[in-house]
Amino acid sequence: MKLFYYPAACSLADHIALIETGLPYGLSGIDREKKTEDGRDFLSINPKGYIPALELEDGTILTENQIILNYIAERSGKLLPEGGIARWRTLEALAFMSSEIHTNYAPFFRDFPEPEKVRAREKLKKAFAILADQMGQKQFLIADEMTIADCYLFWVLMVAPKSGVELPENLQACFDRMRVRSSVIQAFAEEGLA
Amino acid sequence: MKLFYYPAACSLADHIALIETGLPYGLSGIDREKKTEDGRDFLSINPKGYIPALELEDGTILTENQIILNYIAERSGKLLPEGGIARWRTLEALAFMSSEIHTNYAPFFRDFPEPEKVRAREKLKKAFAILADQMGQKQFLIADEMTIADCYLFWVLMVAPKSGVELPENLQACFDRMRVRSSVIQAFAEEGLA
Ligand SMILES: N[C@@H](CCC(=O)N[C@@H](CS)C(=O)NCC(=O)O)C(=O)O
Ligand SMILES: N[C@@H](CCC(=O)N[C@@H](CS)C(=O)NCC(=O)O)C(=O)O
Repeated sequence: MKLFYYPAACSLADHIALIETGLPYGLSGIDREKKTEDGRDFLSINPKGYIPALELEDGTILTENQIILNYIAERSGKLLPEGGIARWRTLEALAFMSSEIHTNYAPFFRDFPEPEKVRAREKLKKAFAILADQMGQKQFLIADEMTIADCYLFWVLMVAPKSGVELPENLQACFDRMRVRSSVIQAFAEEGLA
Repeated sequence: MKLFYYPAACSLADHIALIETGLPYGLSGIDREKKTEDGRDFLSINPKGYIPALELEDGTILTENQIILNYIAERSGKLLPEGGIARWRTLEALAFMSSEIHTNYAPFFRDFPEPEKVRAREKLKKAFAILADQMGQKQFLIADEMTIADCYLFWVLMVAPKSGVELPENLQACFDRMRVRSSVIQAFAEEGLA
């Protein structure tokens, strides 16, 4: 499998998940001209033009962060509770972070007008409060064991300061614990991050 | 199971899926004061405050449209191809419509400033082109049989005119076919729509 990524972008979630599960993987960065490391045109690989994209052994391209994470979990049998409500809560949290948090980072990535930022900050504050409530005193969002929801959560929390929204204490503490995990340290190194 | 909904809102996707699968279900509309039909405070049921929400027999509340659709499919054994890439493509399409289309309807629902509408229309145009490409000459988005992706697609296409973005021909034709399906007619009647 090969993960197409930009350094520090949301593909970091999948990168961390790949390392955590121990699945064999390769990486390809995408440059400013949307070329892959082996010189292919990324748009011909993924017409959506964005990362993450995961290339399977048979050439199939999977897109959408939540789905790539779900695929990595199913394929490895790791990072996703097997049955019962915890599995649905994990998938629900991914959908929530994608639709209610990630999309509200756009005004800060691209410097949209201030009223849009104000609106996004309100949404983000509310969304972080919901995640904080859900985490409570647990080590991770869903349970005391890590799930794919935490891989995406890590990236979501890493980007939060760009928005100027302060993180609830338990989320910040979870971020700080994850930041020193060996999978995260390895992912940062492989993406050339500090 | 009970589905909390607003008439004609994105919960229509779940409503259609419930009818298509034949699972037994109840409905509860939410009024302007966020009260359910049996007088409960909706925010105490779903602190996120939005629909769809699905109440299971044991009182568990599931949220996030994609996840409720996935749950309905798993529980019924219908509307989701069982294995292989078609299952992933179905889930991927749901994630795509949620993050790249639904979120770009906000400027039209709430009448945001024109530059935001322009930006959203560009994103929507691109996203519809991707769906049209994926559908090709098939009867539905993933295959010639309906999946949960089509339940959400129906709602997404129904709302498109509000954005002023014209639909590609094959998507419009799919919408027109679905509009006269008995499940859709029943869902409209049950939500009090014309
Ligand atoms: N719906 C996609 C969105 C992915 C996304 O927003 N990717 C960003 C990086 S975090 C990106 O590639 N943006 C660059 C672009 O769209 O050209 C998902 O959930 O995976
Ligand atoms: N992330 C949620 C968003 C659901 C959503 O946007 N629901 C809308 C109706 S289509 C809603 O209830 N809006 C009213 C509100 O947020 O108060 C999902 O994908 O299910």
